[in-house]
Amino acid sequence: MDQAARLILQSELVANEDLPDEGADPRAAAALGKPLIAEEDLAIDNSALLIHHTRVSDLRLAAGMDHVVSGPEHVEVHTHCMPDWARTTVACVLDPGETLQVVKFIGYGWSGQRSRPALRDQVHAALTAARFAGWQGLLMAQRAFLDEFWDAADVELDGDPEIQQAVRFALFHVLQAGARAERRPVASKGLTGPGYDGHTFWDTEMFALPVLTSTQPTAARDALRWRHSTLDLARERASTLGLSGAAFPWRTIHGQECSAYWPAGTAAFHIGADIASAVVGYIDATGDEDFAREFGVELLVETARLWRSLGHHDRHGVFHIDGVTGPDEYSALGDDNVFTNLMAAWNLRAAAEQALKYPDVAQALGATVEETAEWRDAANAMHVPYDEELGVHQQHRNFTSHQEWDFANTPPEHYPLLLHVPYFDLYRKQVVKQADLVLAMHWCSHAFTPDQKARNFAYYEARTVRDSSLSASTQAVIAAEVGHLELAHDYLAETALMDLHDLNHNTRDGVHIASLAGSWLALVAGFGGMRSYHGRLSFAPRLPSRIDRLSFSVRWRGLRLRVTVRANEATYELRPSQEENHDHEVKLALRHHGQEFTVSSAEPVTMAVPVAPQVTPPTQPVGREPVPRDLRTSD
Amino acid sequence: MDQAARLILQSELVANEDLPDEGADPRAAAALGKPLIAEEDLAIDNSALLIHHTRVSDLRLAAGMDHVVSGPEHVEVHTHCMPDWARTTVACVLDPGETLQVVKFIGYGWSGQRSRPALRDQVHAALTAARFAGWQGLLMAQRAFLDEFWDAADVELDGDPEIQQAVRFALFHVLQAGARAERRPVASKGLTGPGYDGHTFWDTEMFALPVLTSTQPTAARDALRWRHSTLDLARERASTLGLSGAAFPWRTIHGQECSAYWPAGTAAFHIGADIASAVVGYIDATGDEDFAREFGVELLVETARLWRSLGHHDRHGVFHIDGVTGPDEYSALGDDNVFTNLMAAWNLRAAAEQALKYPDVAQALGATVEETAEWRDAANAMHVPYDEELGVHQQHRNFTSHQEWDFANTPPEHYPLLLHVPYFDLYRKQVVKQADLVLAMHWCSHAFTPDQKARNFAYYEARTVRDSSLSASTQAVIAAEVGHLELAHDYLAETALMDLHDLNHNTRDGVHIASLAGSWLALVAGFGGMRSYHGRLSFAPRLPSRIDRLSFSVRWRGLRLRVTVRANEATYELRPSQEENHDHEVKLALRHHGQEFTVSSAEPVTMAVPVAPQVTPPTQPVGREPVPRDLRTSD
Repeated sequence: MDQAARLILQSELVANEDLPDEGADPRAAAALGKPLIAEEDLAIDNSALLIHHTRVSDLRLAAGMDHVVSGPEHVEVHTHCMPDWARTTVACVLDPGETLQVVKFIGYGWSGQRSRPALRDQVHAALTAARFAGWQGLLMAQRAFLDEFWDAADVELDGDPEIQQAVRFALFHVLQAGARAERRPVASKGLTGPGYDGHTFWDTEMFALPVLTSTQPTAARDALRWRHSTLDLARERASTLGLSGAAFPWRTIHGQECSAYWPAGTAAFHIGADIASAVVGYIDATGDEDFAREFGVELLVETARLWRSLGHHDRHGVFHIDGVTGPDEYSALGDDNVFTNLMAAWNLRAAAEQALKYPDVAQALGATVEETAEWRDAANAMHVPYDEELGVHQQHRNFTSHQEWDFANTPPEHYPLLLHVPYFDLYRKQVVKQADLVLAMHWCSHAFTPDQKARNFAYYEARTVRDSSLSASTQAVIAAEVGHLELAHDYLAETALMDLHDLNHNTRDGVHIASLAGSWLALVAGFGGMRSYHGRLSFAPRLPSRIDRLSFSVRWRGLRLRVTVRANEATYELRPSQEENHDHEVKLALRHHGQEFTVSSAEPVTMAVPVAPQVTPPTQPVGREPVPRDLRTSD
Repeated sequence: MDQAARLILQSELVANEDLPDEGADPRAAAALGKPLIAEEDLAIDNSALLIHHTRVSDLRLAAGMDHVVSGPEHVEVHTHCMPDWARTTVACVLDPGETLQVVKFIGYGWSGQRSRPALRDQVHAALTAARFAGWQGLLMAQRAFLDEFWDAADVELDGDPEIQQAVRFALFHVLQAGARAERRPVASKGLTGPGYDGHTFWDTEMFALPVLTSTQPTAARDALRWRHSTLDLARERASTLGLSGAAFPWRTIHGQECSAYWPAGTAAFHIGADIASAVVGYIDATGDEDFAREFGVELLVETARLWRSLGHHDRHGVFHIDGVTGPDEYSALGDDNVFTNLMAAWNLRAAAEQALKYPDVAQALGATVEETAEWRDAANAMHVPYDEELGVHQQHRNFTSHQEWDFANTPPEHYPLLLHVPYFDLYRKQVVKQADLVLAMHWCSHAFTPDQKARNFAYYEARTVRDSSLSASTQAVIAAEVGHLELAHDYLAETALMDLHDLNHNTRDGVHIASLAGSWLALVAGFGGMRSYHGRLSFAPRLPSRIDRLSFSVRWRGLRLRVTVRANEATYELRPSQEENHDHEVKLALRHHGQEFTVSSAEPVTMAVPVAPQVTPPTQPVGREPVPRDLRTSD
């Protein structure tokens, strides 16, 4: 613009903004009309403060803003406030070449206990500190934090710039959701939107925490400490259900079960093993014995007790877990869900092992050797249903004899099926919303032979519709393992672009933290082939044709391992964490495509990548093939 | 009293009476606060009229009363009315020996369409007609109707006067519930109380209608015509569920599904076969071809279509019906429930047979020979799960490997379990609320060998807690068949005394029509051993030690067959119905303990009762043995 312009700039704080009505989609939040009751509004100079409390739970929230305005000589600044909004208006005339700069600082505080003056002071102190540090000061502190994160977490990807960007976006959001959760749950949408009412589910432990454990372990630790803080409620829930140990809630904010539909809520008991898996994953990756003693062992013991009481031996001594719901939400109340049974068996063994390792902790928890022996026995006797005739595992008993879904006559607009078909029909047929048996093959990899994995993947691939955002990443991991590298690449793209391309048309409700975390899993556990078994890391890297180079890091017991994969070779580099003495040589025993080797911080190791086996591409349900990349890019 | 007494007599009509709060019992009615809105109240002489309409459904209801008062010379009578009540007060002084007689007449009328004057006129006309007929006139008309009923329906029982009385009480209530239902459903409480919100369920067709078919067939016909009148809604429901044919509602008043919990509602698809069973039972017993043409065949065809679309063939050509709920409400969403599968197979064959018999009707319904062939094929391929190792049928697939219920540690006050234990736990264990597999053995008798019946009965007897009033009668029927005659007698007492002794502590919500009907079934199908198969009646009478003589009648194709059973012999007597010419000899081919014979109206036939086999008494869950008679009598 080559002439003077009048500029009006408004900066606002708004409470009780109307949420759009999202109709009957169960994944959206229940819209609460004006959930906040105003207590105080206050404007001082260019700052404003609003204090509210929530209608039912009586949590108090204070939000403040302040502004530093610099510009031409004559700038008018007014700040007004009302109970539900505050506004700072900046007015000036800018001549060509002139600049108006407004720095806006925001401070929040909340509490279920502290007084209004206390929260008012907290927010004003935060704003004062921010003004004192200034924009540059805040920026530098943030950059230092993120530099430390990216140093250990960054993934590099040559050949697919769209996914390169998407994976960084994903890691940033997973960090955002987890870094400051501290003693709070990591919600499935993080803090990015009202979807699922801000609740946390099993996907935090099974998707987000494995990523944080490898990239920002303190965040994983804090999330698990929050789970531990809810143990009393989980024990009470187990008792209500006539069970021992702890029954963690399917969906919750504070630890109570908030699912109103028990066949797809409480019955999904696998959440206990998912938490146990995150606990052991964290302990294995960090060697954090303090955490193990104070939190980890108790979580393992109480979840093991749940499994022992939930299952039973039949007259032949085989252990069954009947009438529960696995990860696939298009089946419910099945007998012997393979994912649940394998994870439960692992959970029972892991609890017994940790009880052996920390006998004083086990004793304090009342876990006797007789009890741990029972856990091992149940784990060893666990039933894993397998269809001999088809040569595939059954997602749960009877599954493979259920009616096939009529995909040919399901029009594209009927997906996601949950919005168009009664659950009655979904539950009784061979249609899979999300990886379930395939998820078992990721996390209980040793329970399957390579041939079983290949056959199982093909069988469930043809019946999985990916109506959940928790599917593509796992399908990518196992597709890569069994040799469908191009398909794995497609699924990587789906999970990584879930929100950037709004593939499920609900990013307005918040980003899909687990799907974003899944893009890291698709790369690291998929193309990197990373698995952890009995505290040992193994890799089986192999790239799809369009990715020339993949480089990722994992934190492991204070070390940083960087793996760089190319078409024919993979290089493993080890260094101590930044805090350690870099001159001290450290070593780590690993596996590469089944071959044991040791990498030292003195020297990287390069290993050859074996040629991929020839495989027949699997098929997906008609119309549910991976989203084509070129179409998606032109959205 | 030997002196004059002042007497005040109040006679009332009351609307919107407060219902007691029944807490969380799902079997009680939802208490509606003042469901009726007053429209008119009117007192004329000793009569009063109240007109209301229902708040939501806008049904209009008029209720009137009138009084004929006779007594000493000075009697004061006042009638007052208010919107929600009317009261006639009679005051007098009676000297010793004097009499005050008040005859109260009540008239009701209701409509969703007719005007207030029309209903007012209807009630006043009814009251006028009643006054005109007078008490004696009304009594005589009622007596003539009941004499005709009892002539065909009465059961005589020597040796157990308590049950003799209870069975007559039961038959009276079944008649009350059904005789004037006309084009309305027979509710599970009849009109005796607000329990289950006045809804009708499958037990009308499976318990009440078989009794009415044999004793008051026009009432059975009317109830089935009501079902037929809801066919469009049932077809719409099937279509909503992606199915063909008609899906009848689990609970309803008007034909729409009113169950809010689909695993124990809509998923209980067996109601379709239950209706079909009542249809064929009625047609077989009456030979009513007009009914068959106009209503019966269509009900059979549309229910058969439902089964064909609900089930599927597996890769071996075996037909399965997965993910449905059988009669036992402590299991849900099982695969291949035996009761459902056998009843469905029978339903499919019956529809094909009737289509063959009425080809013009079948053609009008679009039922081609290809379609009926598909029904027969599905029926012939139906899977019936059987546990070879235990030698018993599985209530549904996997059932016999589920965990046993811990009866030893279930205290008596935890029954009924549904009020104390989460359904999650009930669904996944071997605990049976009510006869399910045992009910299949009653209605699909030919699908089981005698040995299987004996073993199945013992197996399920040990796991059935009778938390439903729909269980004891069926257990009585099969206990009698397999030789546990004393146990059958105990269960007969339970079902017959359900309301007279308030055994379930909820008779305040209304009587249990199906349980009462079950007392007739326990006698006739139990000790009489009556079954109908392909339109032929068979009997296998055998008495318990404490019953010396049992005599019952059934109406069969215009004939009345009376069966009198004693310890060692049974006598069959045949006579035409009262309308027929008694001089014309009629004959009927029957079976007695498997032996074919013919009885003629000219002469009764007496057959020997074979000696009962020696059997080992089965056991029930601890604390769920049949209610002891002497305790009960001293209640």
